[in-house]
Amino acid sequence: MSTTTDTQTAYEKLSQKMYGAALLESTAAILGWEQETYMPDGARGHRAGQLSQLAGMIHEMTVQPEVGDLIAACEQDAALNADPISEEAVNIREWRRVYDRATKLPQSLVEEITKTQSLAQGEWAKARKDSDFPRFQPYLEKIMELMRQKAECYGYSTDGEPYDALLEDYEPGATAKEIESIFVPLRERLAPLIAEIAGSANKPTGALHKVVVPKDKQKELSKFVSKSLGFDFETGRLDETTHPFCSGIGPGDTRLTTRFRDDNFPDALSSTMHETGHGLYEQGLRGECFGTPMGKSISLGIHESQSRMWENQVGRSEAFWSWFAPQVKQLLGVAELERFTAADMFRDANMVEPSFIRVESDEATYNLHIMLRFELERALLRGDLKPADLPGVWNERFRAYLGIEVPDDRRGCLQDVHWAFGLVGYFPTYTLGNLYSAQLFEKISEDIPTLQDQFRQGEFAELLTWLREHIHHHGQRYRATDLCKHVTGKELSAEPLLRHLEGKLRPVYGL
Amino acid sequence: MSTTTDTQTAYEKLSQKMYGAALLESTAAILGWEQETYMPDGARGHRAGQLSQLAGMIHEMTVQPEVGDLIAACEQDAALNADPISEEAVNIREWRRVYDRATKLPQSLVEEITKTQSLAQGEWAKARKDSDFPRFQPYLEKIMELMRQKAECYGYSTDGEPYDALLEDYEPGATAKEIESIFVPLRERLAPLIAEIAGSANKPTGALHKVVVPKDKQKELSKFVSKSLGFDFETGRLDETTHPFCSGIGPGDTRLTTRFRDDNFPDALSSTMHETGHGLYEQGLRGECFGTPMGKSISLGIHESQSRMWENQVGRSEAFWSWFAPQVKQLLGVAELERFTAADMFRDANMVEPSFIRVESDEATYNLHIMLRFELERALLRGDLKPADLPGVWNERFRAYLGIEVPDDRRGCLQDVHWAFGLVGYFPTYTLGNLYSAQLFEKISEDIPTLQDQFRQGEFAELLTWLREHIHHHGQRYRATDLCKHVTGKELSAEPLLRHLEGKLRPVYGL
Repeated sequence: MSTTTDTQTAYEKLSQKMYGAALLESTAAILGWEQETYMPDGARGHRAGQLSQLAGMIHEMTVQPEVGDLIAACEQDAALNADPISEEAVNIREWRRVYDRATKLPQSLVEEITKTQSLAQGEWAKARKDSDFPRFQPYLEKIMELMRQKAECYGYSTDGEPYDALLEDYEPGATAKEIESIFVPLRERLAPLIAEIAGSANKPTGALHKVVVPKDKQKELSKFVSKSLGFDFETGRLDETTHPFCSGIGPGDTRLTTRFRDDNFPDALSSTMHETGHGLYEQGLRGECFGTPMGKSISLGIHESQSRMWENQVGRSEAFWSWFAPQVKQLLGVAELERFTAADMFRDANMVEPSFIRVESDEATYNLHIMLRFELERALLRGDLKPADLPGVWNERFRAYLGIEVPDDRRGCLQDVHWAFGLVGYFPTYTLGNLYSAQLFEKISEDIPTLQDQFRQGEFAELLTWLREHIHHHGQRYRATDLCKHVTGKELSAEPLLRHLEGKLRPVYGL
Repeated sequence: MSTTTDTQTAYEKLSQKMYGAALLESTAAILGWEQETYMPDGARGHRAGQLSQLAGMIHEMTVQPEVGDLIAACEQDAALNADPISEEAVNIREWRRVYDRATKLPQSLVEEITKTQSLAQGEWAKARKDSDFPRFQPYLEKIMELMRQKAECYGYSTDGEPYDALLEDYEPGATAKEIESIFVPLRERLAPLIAEIAGSANKPTGALHKVVVPKDKQKELSKFVSKSLGFDFETGRLDETTHPFCSGIGPGDTRLTTRFRDDNFPDALSSTMHETGHGLYEQGLRGECFGTPMGKSISLGIHESQSRMWENQVGRSEAFWSWFAPQVKQLLGVAELERFTAADMFRDANMVEPSFIRVESDEATYNLHIMLRFELERALLRGDLKPADLPGVWNERFRAYLGIEVPDDRRGCLQDVHWAFGLVGYFPTYTLGNLYSAQLFEKISEDIPTLQDQFRQGEFAELLTWLREHIHHHGQRYRATDLCKHVTGKELSAEPLLRHLEGKLRPVYGL
């Protein structure tokens, strides 16, 4: 594909190679998006073949020894690395990190993981359907064993643990210990708050979630809100799917998906705002850096901070609803909505209620679902928790954190596909997203004192400009924790998220 | 990607390599389809990069010397080639043909053609817009010069001509002389028929084309008709686009596109039936042969014969409309349609009227548009016609064939993008499609005497079964002309198409 000449530097050659791999990845991303949106069912088998071919090609392009040699040559170039946060130095640092990880796993282990994942997913799906944990148990054992091997191949710091090695795939630089040190105080104040809320005599009615709104009207509303927040439809789309996601394909191409039910339009709305947040991050990456770490998002935690900020800090605020309530009524044209004031809608958007399924849970209880999974997968990986004991421990801890009794494993430890997929270390990034979101938003509110007034006018451009400048444009210049400190002046902590939740939920629930 | 072992035969290795290239081509096909249907405008630049990377990779995979060596090894295996129409022998024959062609062009020529095409398309678009032929003329000269070089590299039979070498890309095995020998008698009877029709005192009113039908209703009707003809929506889709096309992606995945205007729903309908015909061919190819010539369509002419058969032999027949007219009224629910009888609709679907633009022309005049282009591009390539003289000759011949005066080059020799694209030898395949369609349909009507009665009941399955068995399942087993002879027992001739047109149009126009 590429023609290189002697006059090219190692850095240019490397950039070109990595650009080629990124371009092919963006092709795979289109196929992945299309599979969830428009692909006919009968094409499933052929599509799997197409995606597997691309994955193999991308892998070959990124692990070839010449890439390693070029990275080494770049590392020896003092000028390129003089400033550790220059574009070149950042790209070299990240290319090295990714190359080392990709080449550290023996092919036999990669193949065994792929094979086991594939089997485990099928068994998990059947086990969940029948709430039959013993069926899944041997696969969970095998997955955890393979994850331990993977962690050993990657390696981790002497004062760290295997979990850190896996975390690195999703949240580079984070450690289990650090996460624990933030999650524990969060849990210790969040669990009692949720208990207080459960006992409140002044709960929102939830009536808004029961209004029937035709799907095409919900679709219009979703596009309207996404556009209002700043999503550019010239370089993006919003489509319908079963499980909403956002896919940043490449420069000028970002795809959002959301879902619609006949009832529960607030659910479609928060899905849309959530994915719009991801999409705004993708659209905010510098297109000219495509194919380099400087043009990529930092981590899953930071990505999630963007989606959560638009979904929660913006989309569940009193100021947002004071602007949005009349828009909803006008756009949807559903008579039943007329009886809801902006305050009613705001209250209903902030319902908090312990429930069994993570993906259906609310802004506050969600974090307890995550902590539970973080603690259990960490213990499973260490071998401190035996897979056979998972259901019992899950249910017991669920009772302790959320105060409700898990009725069966389908609504308990079998609900998520992550472990069957071999995704260990992924879960904590969801709550890290909430934490980063809250901490960044406190800083933004200081920097832009009129922010809430702007929301009341349906103006979100200044918030987006701030995020572009302080987060999006940096690509992977900083690690997530460093970016947080650089921008907010403080280490990540549980305090801002607790202030956000308590500050909003106590008045809503009259506590 | 592929792991080969010593125990694999050359044929297996070759099949595996070719499968890989076909798989990647099918990925490019998804990107191409998506570009015309859902891609946001802002993604155009990035998409061009993705497609260009894939094209380069596919080219590399197909021209690598190992492929040539494997083909040579297969050719030396007597057992594989014992039966020249066995799957293996056919695949080896066609792989050889494609490999030789792909490796015969020097890289410098390929690059110059690509560059010139890209420039020529831009200039052509501007020239057409302003009806400014001199602007396009130097590019046409350059294109024809490059096409001559291309033809010389490919080579052609000693009693043939350079045009044959180019034709081979679209209609393997066909020659300009053969085509001429069929086109001339067709023209000699068609031109007078069209003149008679123009003078008829009993023309269809064309009122059906003016009924306003909402787009979503037209879309429903399109899906209904496509499904009725036998298109499988489990393994295919129908979407909206500017220029309708069909893309056979791979097993289980065939995409149709059509277009809708508020008026002229019969136009959407014939577009849909046309593309459905292409789609039925693609869905009829044997999925287990994907990646081999036995799983591919024969030629553009045969592909077009399938689209034309469903569009014209079926979709413009009296029997079809006697079934379809009540369906149209019921599905569209437009009051204005009530006054049309099935006979009215059938007559309006068969309007014939000389016009300037090929893609808007009717079933009969269309062929004269094609012949004109075939004669002129053949003369341009030979050097018998100078590009500077093209507009004059075009207009004069247009008057002779169609009896109307071309008002400007925009509606004359600048209307089609083909030459700017470097597509010389492509045009005749359109009329070859009509010829094959008519000749095959005469044979089908003999084999299935109740065919028209079936159409009257909205039954098309027996026709489709016939096409599956005699055309689709053969892949590239036969050359187009051989298939025609094998199936109909006769060489391709103008007679069946003339019988079809005269037999239908004379009664419609009271001649």
